[in-house]
Amino acid sequence: MSEDNSQNLTPEEILRQKALAYHATPTAGKIEIALTKPADSAEDLALAYSPGVAEPVREIAQNIDNIYKYTAKGNTVAVISNGTAILGLGNLGPMASKPVMEGKALLFKRFAGLDSIDIEVKHRTIDEFVDTVANIADTFGGINLEDIKAPDCFEIERRLIEKCDIPVFHDDQHGTAIVTAAGMLNAIELQGKDLKECTIVCLGAGAAAVACMELLIKCGAMREKIYMLDRKGVIHTRRDDLNEYKQLFASNTDKRTLEDAIQGADLFLGVSGPNLLPPEALKLMADKPVVFACSNPDPEIKPETAQQARQDLIMGTGRSDYPNQVNNVLCFPFIFRGALDVRASEINDEMKIAAIEAIRQLAKEPVPAEVLKAAGANSLAFGSEYIIPKPMDPRLLPRVAKAVAQAAVDSGVARIAMPENYMED
Amino acid sequence: MSEDNSQNLTPEEILRQKALAYHATPTAGKIEIALTKPADSAEDLALAYSPGVAEPVREIAQNIDNIYKYTAKGNTVAVISNGTAILGLGNLGPMASKPVMEGKALLFKRFAGLDSIDIEVKHRTIDEFVDTVANIADTFGGINLEDIKAPDCFEIERRLIEKCDIPVFHDDQHGTAIVTAAGMLNAIELQGKDLKECTIVCLGAGAAAVACMELLIKCGAMREKIYMLDRKGVIHTRRDDLNEYKQLFASNTDKRTLEDAIQGADLFLGVSGPNLLPPEALKLMADKPVVFACSNPDPEIKPETAQQARQDLIMGTGRSDYPNQVNNVLCFPFIFRGALDVRASEINDEMKIAAIEAIRQLAKEPVPAEVLKAAGANSLAFGSEYIIPKPMDPRLLPRVAKAVAQAAVDSGVARIAMPENYMED
Repeated sequence: MSEDNSQNLTPEEILRQKALAYHATPTAGKIEIALTKPADSAEDLALAYSPGVAEPVREIAQNIDNIYKYTAKGNTVAVISNGTAILGLGNLGPMASKPVMEGKALLFKRFAGLDSIDIEVKHRTIDEFVDTVANIADTFGGINLEDIKAPDCFEIERRLIEKCDIPVFHDDQHGTAIVTAAGMLNAIELQGKDLKECTIVCLGAGAAAVACMELLIKCGAMREKIYMLDRKGVIHTRRDDLNEYKQLFASNTDKRTLEDAIQGADLFLGVSGPNLLPPEALKLMADKPVVFACSNPDPEIKPETAQQARQDLIMGTGRSDYPNQVNNVLCFPFIFRGALDVRASEINDEMKIAAIEAIRQLAKEPVPAEVLKAAGANSLAFGSEYIIPKPMDPRLLPRVAKAVAQAAVDSGVARIAMPENYMED
Repeated sequence: MSEDNSQNLTPEEILRQKALAYHATPTAGKIEIALTKPADSAEDLALAYSPGVAEPVREIAQNIDNIYKYTAKGNTVAVISNGTAILGLGNLGPMASKPVMEGKALLFKRFAGLDSIDIEVKHRTIDEFVDTVANIADTFGGINLEDIKAPDCFEIERRLIEKCDIPVFHDDQHGTAIVTAAGMLNAIELQGKDLKECTIVCLGAGAAAVACMELLIKCGAMREKIYMLDRKGVIHTRRDDLNEYKQLFASNTDKRTLEDAIQGADLFLGVSGPNLLPPEALKLMADKPVVFACSNPDPEIKPETAQQARQDLIMGTGRSDYPNQVNNVLCFPFIFRGALDVRASEINDEMKIAAIEAIRQLAKEPVPAEVLKAAGANSLAFGSEYIIPKPMDPRLLPRVAKAVAQAAVDSGVARIAMPENYMED
């Protein structure tokens, strides 16, 4: 593409062409296998394969834990999808989800040194999906579920957690919830409010919405102060069209619309679609509100529009070109790193809350020059424009992984002790 | 381990310790994930993941073939096992098979540049294994089944070939059969015999035995001239304990023992166990026999013992420390390379026979200095001590892959044309 041509293209078209070229050249895709041991001579191969490989086989047959000593299992995370809810694009099937899953694998390696492979699953029933994944789970140290539609994702994750003795974590739910909670709790602190007292409006009722609200409740929010809305409006106790997950958030209320619900609310979380929060609704919120408009790429309300409507708010979005980006990459590589490094059997609430606290704390510390440079900022200090760390912050790895590993040990789900001097800077 | 200590150790114990250390240090296992695209800046990540990754997703949703353009699928081979027949060690379960499967992945990368990952499957029934593998098959460009016990492996492979539109290849059957056939055909040619006229004894009736005999028949051997033996002796038509695969080799004969069957035989293939071919039995064979004693690590008869019994034979084994090593690595990396490079929907007989011919032909050509050096030999020329190429021969990749790709195109199972100048030296 010559420069002359590119001047005629929209920014969207330029991104499109760049993204396609990035994926197609010089080789297809983004990840490959590499060897970690010498494989040049016949002697090397006699150790790597026959006859030498019989020795680790025998050791594992004698004691299954030796699989962590002699194979890549303990550093491997499978990124598994059925392609039923790809990004904001919908149910496009397992094959179309592969670039996203390979991208997630790339992020696991890039941010946490975890070896991650993608598995795309086709299936006819939830049973079949669960059985398929459970049958291959021994291969991996952990399983990151991705882009699976609600409400299937809730049952799938619950049943896989029961069946597998390795961490199973649906990132669209819990990664989103952890980063959202970290940002919201810091924003609420800056606004001088107490989460217990806050009225919360959640626009959207999918996987992320349910997980965010459940985790906020574990952090102290009151279920009866939450109004959740789906496409039909407020989820309330007199509706008869609610699945079991939405039922948990059915309010005993006469409020029916977003305008009804947002009146006097302290917190707004949007996990719905573009431009669904009108400025007039924003003006109905309580003083010093917190607004997270996480629809991607186009938020429920543009930050500049929100700022015009009122100046006392703290705002987060899913976008990297505005302050306070709510990005799962702040969490998932590091929560798996910590979990795998102490061979946690699951990722429990204690570990999620430890991740929240580690992310919150990091936002309150001075920002190193390299992070400022990567963020293109002259300064960053804890405040309304900087409530959560930047995705490129290298301190996330040691801080979050260590907090998560310690929480796994303390809550009794770790199968080995904390490594000595673990993640010391 | 100090040199003083190692002097007290047996060679087996030294190999054991070296193999365990190779697998355990500095990191566990032998393979890792690496990134093929830049992932340093925020802009890189915007192409690799959100928002840019939506573009290849859309392209694949529109045309499923684009998965080969934008993802790693087309260069990826899954090595899949249930651990029911690991090496010669038996049914030790999926976890214990992992070092072997990772080793196979290492060989795929080392010899053919294919990105290969291992998947270990636990299951209760053949149905469940087949469904599990079929459900994840879209992820990969091809599937190499490995270390699955007979007779399950036959049904599993047959059903997966039906269900999957990518090559599914049980290497213990067909890789072994291809390399064995290449060596045997060259040996028979050197002995001045015609395969059609040869009486064949196959000691062993497992996956490799059945596949070797079926492929030899496709190369011209006569089924009625084959005697196959299992642990109970000759497989004959009056036995009522034969599975459907053994039944195909039931001879209408009064021969019952190895000594009965080997009388006057031209070809012996051992895929059974150590020292099961006594020198006295060898002496009963026809003039100029061909003996492949492929039990590993200890063959059915030691080459030095066989040479003492008679000097007119040509012999192959599975061992690298004798001439004529029958080693699957001569075939499987390259047959997958060729198959994937033209997006073959399967690996059919035409492709297998093309691989045999390419391997046979290579053994008849002058050997480059680098191959001599790697083999520790002063010279190698087509003859009784050199009937098949050495595993380290770099010419195997272009020759076998090209022959296989061409055969896929010619037999109508390729979904794209031969790449231009494909594998030109």
